[in-house]
Amino acid sequence: MGKKAKIHKLEKKVAKLKARLEQAEIHTHVVSPLAPKSGFPHLPVIGGARFSAVKAGVRYPGRVDVMLVELDPGTSVAGVFTRSATRSAPVRDCQAKIGSDPSAGAAFIVNSGNSNAFTGASGEKAVEAITAQVSEVTGVPANRVYSASTGVIGEPLPFERITAKIEELHGTMSPDAIELAARAIMTTDTYAKGSGAEIKIGDRTVRIAGIAKGSGMIAPDMATMLVYIFTDAAVEQALLQEILSDLTDKTFNNITVDSDTSTSDTLLLAATGTSGVTITEDTAAFVEALHKVMLDLAHQVVRDGEGATKFVEIRVTGAASDADARTHAMAIANSPLVKTAIAGEDPNWGRVVMAIGKSGAAAERDKLSIHFGDILVASQGWVSPAYREDEGAAYMKNEELVIAVDLALGKGSATVWTCDLTHGYIQINADYRS
Amino acid sequence: MGKKAKIHKLEKKVAKLKARLEQAEIHTHVVSPLAPKSGFPHLPVIGGARFSAVKAGVRYPGRVDVMLVELDPGTSVAGVFTRSATRSAPVRDCQAKIGSDPSAGAAFIVNSGNSNAFTGASGEKAVEAITAQVSEVTGVPANRVYSASTGVIGEPLPFERITAKIEELHGTMSPDAIELAARAIMTTDTYAKGSGAEIKIGDRTVRIAGIAKGSGMIAPDMATMLVYIFTDAAVEQALLQEILSDLTDKTFNNITVDSDTSTSDTLLLAATGTSGVTITEDTAAFVEALHKVMLDLAHQVVRDGEGATKFVEIRVTGAASDADARTHAMAIANSPLVKTAIAGEDPNWGRVVMAIGKSGAAAERDKLSIHFGDILVASQGWVSPAYREDEGAAYMKNEELVIAVDLALGKGSATVWTCDLTHGYIQINADYRS
Repeated sequence: MGKKAKIHKLEKKVAKLKARLEQAEIHTHVVSPLAPKSGFPHLPVIGGARFSAVKAGVRYPGRVDVMLVELDPGTSVAGVFTRSATRSAPVRDCQAKIGSDPSAGAAFIVNSGNSNAFTGASGEKAVEAITAQVSEVTGVPANRVYSASTGVIGEPLPFERITAKIEELHGTMSPDAIELAARAIMTTDTYAKGSGAEIKIGDRTVRIAGIAKGSGMIAPDMATMLVYIFTDAAVEQALLQEILSDLTDKTFNNITVDSDTSTSDTLLLAATGTSGVTITEDTAAFVEALHKVMLDLAHQVVRDGEGATKFVEIRVTGAASDADARTHAMAIANSPLVKTAIAGEDPNWGRVVMAIGKSGAAAERDKLSIHFGDILVASQGWVSPAYREDEGAAYMKNEELVIAVDLALGKGSATVWTCDLTHGYIQINADYRS
Repeated sequence: MGKKAKIHKLEKKVAKLKARLEQAEIHTHVVSPLAPKSGFPHLPVIGGARFSAVKAGVRYPGRVDVMLVELDPGTSVAGVFTRSATRSAPVRDCQAKIGSDPSAGAAFIVNSGNSNAFTGASGEKAVEAITAQVSEVTGVPANRVYSASTGVIGEPLPFERITAKIEELHGTMSPDAIELAARAIMTTDTYAKGSGAEIKIGDRTVRIAGIAKGSGMIAPDMATMLVYIFTDAAVEQALLQEILSDLTDKTFNNITVDSDTSTSDTLLLAATGTSGVTITEDTAAFVEALHKVMLDLAHQVVRDGEGATKFVEIRVTGAASDADARTHAMAIANSPLVKTAIAGEDPNWGRVVMAIGKSGAAAERDKLSIHFGDILVASQGWVSPAYREDEGAAYMKNEELVIAVDLALGKGSATVWTCDLTHGYIQINADYRS
């Protein structure tokens, strides 16, 4: 073969290989395509709360991986935690400390890279060492130091790397370093998550600022992986806990990335009271603002779901009860077949029917109807006569999708949020540790 | 640039692209790597049962897609079916016909390509048309004609394509065409599944032969997608049903590919009685043989799990009850994080701990121990002191894996079987319909 022919042949081969590669290559995004386009939001500064973060090298080299939050005396702290039977040592420690005397302030200390979960007695020892050191440096009593750890399960936490950095953390505290703190708690997250609100109550302003981390092992049962929310309202601890537990059921408990519940889920809400506004009977405005912040953070966790390319809202109405509606919604949201169909932009409503059928909650085939966005896809036990597959297929190309199911059985309803299941999820999780 | 240099450059480019392609390309196997190496087994011929299959073009062109089984007068038929609330029209029809008078024989008619599920009144009409036509051609009464359909959900079944072929099917019946029948019911299956047994009871031989299909939407709740088992033993219907229901709980109900329960799961067991052996009180030998056949078929379904590269047995012992053990085992088997770790050959026992924690069944962190094969990985709430990660990693390279968990709480135990979650699963399910 002549050189010219060879060049031609090789050029054809390159073109062919490039086409195959484009088909085959797994698209791994540096930042989730569903991340808020505006980046980390500008959050209000919460009086009485100071933040810092440091590179302790717990596991990840060259990035901040430990955060410290110091809270003024009088700060109420409420918390919700994973109900996992194998929850981590720091979760157990936090649970024991909720409700302790707020007069001496509080501190939160969190590391990423290692979850200190299923680490036996050494896990408790590590928590004790870390919280004791924070207490010594900050002067906050140890029973007011709430720790958390997120990352690999079952490896001993090199806690000396953290205790060695407490002085440095304490020396660099700042009221406006909350974004840095959000970065320090990231693991497989592709972006730092924050949300805030400012509301007028009477003639004063109440501020709320929160941060969250979470990307995989997201099917919160009481709370998502790690969330910290701060407000300068004054709220007595029992009321703060009541508000938090109620809103958690409407936000973080209704999201799922992969149906796997973390051993470390922790959500702490701190109310410093520096706004001078005390929330007592009329909680409506505060609850509404807090609800928005919690929902925003919960959605951001889903938007950073491992490998996610679609943000999906599942709305179920007409169920026999709210509990039944949630069971159906979660069955749809957690179905690998529904999630892969969404990834493939396939309006495969048959798989939605399948998920409803398997959920165990009440449903009658001939009564249920399904919408994809505004498109009525199925009703009265069959595909809708007006439905056109090309319309469904066009709708599925959207980055944000709504799948609505009405069961026509009762008044129960629920809305949950999830993402699709893609090659990216497999990619991330088949070699997370290696 | 000279021609020689250009050739060199292009050759380098080809090599580079090939390497990237090898990394990136999704390995789709024509046949599952876990398929039995010996191919379809040699099954005993069951007296009183005749099989045929035909290309009806229901959906798949150029392959057999409808099977017919004709069973002699006196054949008992037992069945177990999906408990899905959105189960298909043929499933509902079969359920109504179980227990009908066996004196006039029975027939099974099954198509692949379309599940006739969630097709409203037209679904029932299709079942009626098909079973009526089978009845007319074979002379078997319609209330003894059991139909099934497997494939896409929610599209009208073009039943005329099936009714048009009944004469041809009936004209080509043969006692030894069971493998062809097994091929006709495949959808995303990569190989036809069969299993058989011959046992001596007294001085006579009893034969069992079964076929199954199933690859995705596998988390059976009463039965797997489609399974048909035949025996020449004589077994009265009530006893046959009792034996079948009991064995289903030990076999098909303990497998899961993707936690998604089909709308079409159907398992029929037919006893023709032609061996002259009647099973009454002493059922042990027959039950043991049938158990083996059912377990073999159930395992073959898992081995053909969509995208599967590993066959995994999950054994849970020491649970508070058998039900608790099964809950734990299924939580492990269905966890996307456990399944992706297995795909990545990562001995990530932390994810096993997570799955136990989230399952909702009783567990105590400091009592549980985990084995990967013979390797003690974790005990007393932490990684075992003797465990070496390189040993765990070497074990995970096996194609067949055993993950054993002991909870040290009681005497409850359960064993379930599953496969890994790979790029292949996403590949298959993100464009199943397109």
